[in-house]
Amino acid sequence: MNHTLIQKVLGVLLICEGGILIIPLLIAVFFRESCCYMPFIIAIFTAFISGGLLNCLKPESTKIGYKEGFAIVTFGWLLTSIIGALPFYFGGILPSYLDALFETVSGFTTTGATVLNNVEAIPYSFNFWRCFTHWIGGMGILVLTLAVSPSVGGSFQVLKAESPGPMSNKKIAPSVAKTAQILYGTYIIITLLEIILLYFGGMSLFDAVIHTFATVGTGGFSSKNQSIGAYNSLYIEIVVAVFMVMSGTNFSLYFHLYNKKSFNFFKNEEFRFYIIVIAISIAVISINLFGNVYSSIGQSLRYAMFQVSSIITTTGFATADFDLWPDFSKGILMLLMFFGGCAGSTAGSIKHIRILMLIKNAKREMLKVFHPNAVMSIRIDGKTIPDEVMQKVTNFFFLFISIFFIMTLLVALQGLDLISAASSVAATLGNVGPGLGLVGPTMNYGGMTALTKILLIICMLIGRLELYTVLVLFMPSFWRN
Amino acid sequence: MNHTLIQKVLGVLLICEGGILIIPLLIAVFFRESCCYMPFIIAIFTAFISGGLLNCLKPESTKIGYKEGFAIVTFGWLLTSIIGALPFYFGGILPSYLDALFETVSGFTTTGATVLNNVEAIPYSFNFWRCFTHWIGGMGILVLTLAVSPSVGGSFQVLKAESPGPMSNKKIAPSVAKTAQILYGTYIIITLLEIILLYFGGMSLFDAVIHTFATVGTGGFSSKNQSIGAYNSLYIEIVVAVFMVMSGTNFSLYFHLYNKKSFNFFKNEEFRFYIIVIAISIAVISINLFGNVYSSIGQSLRYAMFQVSSIITTTGFATADFDLWPDFSKGILMLLMFFGGCAGSTAGSIKHIRILMLIKNAKREMLKVFHPNAVMSIRIDGKTIPDEVMQKVTNFFFLFISIFFIMTLLVALQGLDLISAASSVAATLGNVGPGLGLVGPTMNYGGMTALTKILLIICMLIGRLELYTVLVLFMPSFWRN
Repeated sequence: MNHTLIQKVLGVLLICEGGILIIPLLIAVFFRESCCYMPFIIAIFTAFISGGLLNCLKPESTKIGYKEGFAIVTFGWLLTSIIGALPFYFGGILPSYLDALFETVSGFTTTGATVLNNVEAIPYSFNFWRCFTHWIGGMGILVLTLAVSPSVGGSFQVLKAESPGPMSNKKIAPSVAKTAQILYGTYIIITLLEIILLYFGGMSLFDAVIHTFATVGTGGFSSKNQSIGAYNSLYIEIVVAVFMVMSGTNFSLYFHLYNKKSFNFFKNEEFRFYIIVIAISIAVISINLFGNVYSSIGQSLRYAMFQVSSIITTTGFATADFDLWPDFSKGILMLLMFFGGCAGSTAGSIKHIRILMLIKNAKREMLKVFHPNAVMSIRIDGKTIPDEVMQKVTNFFFLFISIFFIMTLLVALQGLDLISAASSVAATLGNVGPGLGLVGPTMNYGGMTALTKILLIICMLIGRLELYTVLVLFMPSFWRN
Repeated sequence: MNHTLIQKVLGVLLICEGGILIIPLLIAVFFRESCCYMPFIIAIFTAFISGGLLNCLKPESTKIGYKEGFAIVTFGWLLTSIIGALPFYFGGILPSYLDALFETVSGFTTTGATVLNNVEAIPYSFNFWRCFTHWIGGMGILVLTLAVSPSVGGSFQVLKAESPGPMSNKKIAPSVAKTAQILYGTYIIITLLEIILLYFGGMSLFDAVIHTFATVGTGGFSSKNQSIGAYNSLYIEIVVAVFMVMSGTNFSLYFHLYNKKSFNFFKNEEFRFYIIVIAISIAVISINLFGNVYSSIGQSLRYAMFQVSSIITTTGFATADFDLWPDFSKGILMLLMFFGGCAGSTAGSIKHIRILMLIKNAKREMLKVFHPNAVMSIRIDGKTIPDEVMQKVTNFFFLFISIFFIMTLLVALQGLDLISAASSVAATLGNVGPGLGLVGPTMNYGGMTALTKILLIICMLIGRLELYTVLVLFMPSFWRN
């Protein structure tokens, strides 16, 4: 393992973060929030100095292998959060550095779980920085899964589901640059489009910008205590819902749209499955809400539509306190937390491509039971899935569920009831944000013990980096040469 | 598919059941419970007549293939329950036939979930029949998994985990007869041993017999409303706990003990893992209970020991209302419901061998991430697990968790809170019996809606027959020739 190289790359990352931190500082200057200057300046200097020092290192080789890739990605997400938390800490808006770190990890992992009681009381520049971390985190995960990953060229769609991560040891620089460029373009166009639509829907420009950051990053931070519900505008709800679903879509589909103008999204099996799951969930929740919670079917549909789009894309905005909904609807939302969006999107959790593969695999295994000698392959979009990829997917499912159970127990040990514990773990591991019970949409994570917050920070990172990237670092053999 | 043959075999099964039903009738005569004569006589006649009629059929071939095997096993379990429920229904101890069916399916699947409010009010003969169904069901699953299954000879231990079921189309009659004979012997010896030990511990002979039936079948029905807790005897608790753990052990280990006297149980990886999980669970729950629920460490250990042994072996006896324990302890018990005992035992749920294989597979997949070209095999007891077996196991896990989620939602739709819904599904799918909340150890399933009871009956059958056996019957292609 090339430790020096890892440190050098992390140094570059920190220098970039220092540069990015200048933007919220400019926002503070614009709004004349003089109390916020110092916190950002401290963070910028810390980022530049630590980054600069690390960048001075001279690695013997510049070859990035699998191991280096994993270490860079995990420590990269962690380090940028550690530095990114400094403004919140020095700004005094959160009681402890741990809370500031929680908020920032929640931002960069596009989770959107907050420890803030009253987001409306904090300065503009801090709210900007909170939501901007979503946007950067979302961009980061897209570049990682779609551009840096080695399988961009080949059986993209499917292998994608299994390669969130590491840099390849092949030379892929030219294609990375090209792919990343198209990505930036797409991401920025979608961002601008939503800002314009929200602005014309009556939001202030500032609110439109930060809610857009939180939408396209599928994060969920808001400058309102009541989240999107504060606007009570059907137009805004529809715009945000559509953009959440778009951001939970595999961004490679936008590539295809760019390359061949006539591309039909519904030819893509994962996208079709994603839309079907959304439609069914909205339908059954609406029926369940109608009469029980809302007196009109229109209202039931409206709130079901928004909450389903928000949870399945792991964004976490809310327009209703779904913790007060019937247990069936709450159960569906809880289940959707495990679905997540599509692979190659900014959404977290298991993702639809994996669920689809697991269902196809289950069908195959059942057919094999009474046709033991038949050879059956699993196909997605007409391409055969190799057995080894299927093994990775089934194991991913086992690990995800196991981590969910273990973390729920550890959180319950801190005194939380089982529903709050299970939903807070599901909501952080799946990068959703709000859960049920004590972490419901009107509550926040502020009241939890320090240990709980640390556990949930780990969940957010593990979930965002699709388990393997983080978990391998805990294997002793990873660190042996 | 040879429908006539299936019906003929089911006929033989019903005739056997008619014969077995004479035993509780004799118990009724012994206790002079004249009100119980007719209900048993009706059931016996129904069994003999329907069985006799089916047995008159002349199938063209007597070859039992995979498909016939699945159909016989599933419909066999269902039909014997349908007939076995008649005494409860005609005896008038339960308000509806559905309740009687629930109680009987719960018996034959060795679940032990009861709809009875007051078990102490029902006649001896009915209580005997309830618990006797556990004993028969336990024997049935042992014969099925260890004797009838085709892989008895070969890589027994491991393949076992995946072949709960079907009769092979190979000629295995001689080895089946021999294996089944040793099984009967072992099962009866263990049964007699426990009866004697309980009787000398102060139980009445009747109570000793029926609690033994419920222990060795890992069922959990009791003649006391407070279950084993009613005796408040440490001796009885230890005896029952030890026999629960013994009944959750792979019975092939007793074979080995029989064949080579010196066999060491701890050489078996699954057994070792099973004991370690039990020990760790007892330890952490004791620590959690000490101070929070019980003031002495001795008491904490005592109640933790019994409840852990009961839940992990999917028996479901109770000596404490664990629904009042801290959420961490409740969470551990809930997790243990998914573990179950060992393969080839009377216990239900996922089973330790599968969990062990999943853990080893997870480790391998993680190593593969940074050693992508290395060839690594999974070994249990020194034998390599073929990839196709591993695929079956990972898919089993996916199906188990999926069914758990879907059934929990459907039960929640009937108005249950999520904890009660999730734990009632976990407790029936895992053949445990009591759960948390509304189905906690001091509660029962009587108050549920008819649809909920039907859903949970399906869970009990699917769980007992290890998913595939039942699920394949729902595939249209299963019924095509």
